[in-house]
Amino acid sequence: MINELIKKIVKMEAPIVVGLDPMENYIPECVKSKAYAEFGETLAGAGEAVWQYNKALIDAVADIVPAVKPQIAMYEQFGIEGLIAYKKTVDYAKEKGLVVIGDVKRGDIGSTSAAYATAHLGKVKVGNNTFAAFNEDFATVNPYLGTDGIKPFVDVCKAEKKGIFVLVKTSNPSSGEFQDRLIDGRPLYEHVADKVCEWGADAMGDAYSYVGAVVGGTYPEMGRVLRKAMPKTFILVPGYGAQGAKGADIAPYFNADGLGAIVNSSRGIIAAYKQEAYANYGDAGFADAARAAALAMKEDLKQAWMK
Amino acid sequence: MINELIKKIVKMEAPIVVGLDPMENYIPECVKSKAYAEFGETLAGAGEAVWQYNKALIDAVADIVPAVKPQIAMYEQFGIEGLIAYKKTVDYAKEKGLVVIGDVKRGDIGSTSAAYATAHLGKVKVGNNTFAAFNEDFATVNPYLGTDGIKPFVDVCKAEKKGIFVLVKTSNPSSGEFQDRLIDGRPLYEHVADKVCEWGADAMGDAYSYVGAVVGGTYPEMGRVLRKAMPKTFILVPGYGAQGAKGADIAPYFNADGLGAIVNSSRGIIAAYKQEAYANYGDAGFADAARAAALAMKEDLKQAWMK
Repeated sequence: MINELIKKIVKMEAPIVVGLDPMENYIPECVKSKAYAEFGETLAGAGEAVWQYNKALIDAVADIVPAVKPQIAMYEQFGIEGLIAYKKTVDYAKEKGLVVIGDVKRGDIGSTSAAYATAHLGKVKVGNNTFAAFNEDFATVNPYLGTDGIKPFVDVCKAEKKGIFVLVKTSNPSSGEFQDRLIDGRPLYEHVADKVCEWGADAMGDAYSYVGAVVGGTYPEMGRVLRKAMPKTFILVPGYGAQGAKGADIAPYFNADGLGAIVNSSRGIIAAYKQEAYANYGDAGFADAARAAALAMKEDLKQAWMK
Repeated sequence: MINELIKKIVKMEAPIVVGLDPMENYIPECVKSKAYAEFGETLAGAGEAVWQYNKALIDAVADIVPAVKPQIAMYEQFGIEGLIAYKKTVDYAKEKGLVVIGDVKRGDIGSTSAAYATAHLGKVKVGNNTFAAFNEDFATVNPYLGTDGIKPFVDVCKAEKKGIFVLVKTSNPSSGEFQDRLIDGRPLYEHVADKVCEWGADAMGDAYSYVGAVVGGTYPEMGRVLRKAMPKTFILVPGYGAQGAKGADIAPYFNADGLGAIVNSSRGIIAAYKQEAYANYGDAGFADAARAAALAMKEDLKQAWMK
């Protein structure tokens, strides 16, 4: 799947993933009111609004970006109905040819991590049958529990030719509280990066490993160090746009081959219609506004990776 | 909820939480075959088997232990149908008077962590209505992203009088890879423990905070240090039984008041019927075997907390 993701990035000249984080206040009133009219102001109504919002966004960007990244927390808050919308979103995005990165940040130990890996990337056995539960192409994973937590994911990735992105340095202001602390003179995130290389070494695609890393775009100096420390690791970069990182900030995350990173934007694309620059699209034009914002991001990123 | 949990522990003289981790191979054949006969060897069949298994286990232990801890990964692997079984399990356990600790190990940043907190402990707004999605009493949370990831959970805990257990030192063999590394001469887990105290300081119940910690029972020496470092923090202790910790190992996790810890056992109770000691119960007697194993654990733990 990492090979396929890279092929799509190259073909579309867009190292971009659109974050499908359907916050209630991002969803246009016209979408919500239609869903509520049909299903009421209920969890089912919320699930329908989320799904219709995502469907229109996917239709608007599927031919210009390689991937989407639904953030499962935003669906989980609506319970079962929200998770049905998540599953429909994953299935529809794949149907439209998009690579799907499930932003699930799961992580546990042993058989429990294996169950999460099965849930999101693998297949579960029921009697003599097997089923894929959520069936994303990639998942994000938390490393705090060590190798026991990651190994079951890597095993499933190898079996299914899928991938993970391990949290190394996150984009948030307080990410340094633990991640930046020095251990033997090097920050914790560099030690995690060492392990990411180790975990990924025997799960290689053509040029990059199935085991990727999350490194926030809000810390370009650390991005530069981590890019060098993990030469064969694909980096998922959150923090672009609304969180503050710009195209030029992202340059250090790419290798000399112009590859090695995919940059996420959520709010900046899916809620573009709320920005002054795209206000003329109006509520009802939210999907067209998202397409325009994705194209603008593609232009902005060119300075980062086209050398 | 921490006050209520403590009241129940004292009343039942059992600082015990039963881990509802319905691994496929723990569920007795008789339960699976009945579910598959009705729903087929499908995800719905798996969900039904999980639910019937849990229901019988809850009925068997509800009057002798204060709490259950469903491990959501085991349900998530069966997709939507699995999560429906999770929700039914949470609801039924609460109906039977049990405190429910959702072992979800979620953790993200800002609005995303807020969405997870809403999903598991809070209420979500849909138009003019509000709904509780999964509605556990406690949730386990991963600290790797720092305060940004935890604060939204604490806010929901305060509003809803619920609680969290933050991963400090986990029970697995590789937990030391990052958690034990020395920062300014002290292991990372102690730095996380400092933060747990800080996060919990303004979210106090009567004697203990709404913000608890997970400290594996497999590392009693670290348990001793962390007990002292976090005097007002309730500790959730995994690792008892199948993972190797015994009653005497757990003593350091309790305060002088005989409180301060709740010990989890999953396999050792819910799959007791598979052990030689409980073999006479047979497959069909799995729930009675679980009850007997829970009572034996209660006896074994007395040496740890009754001073």
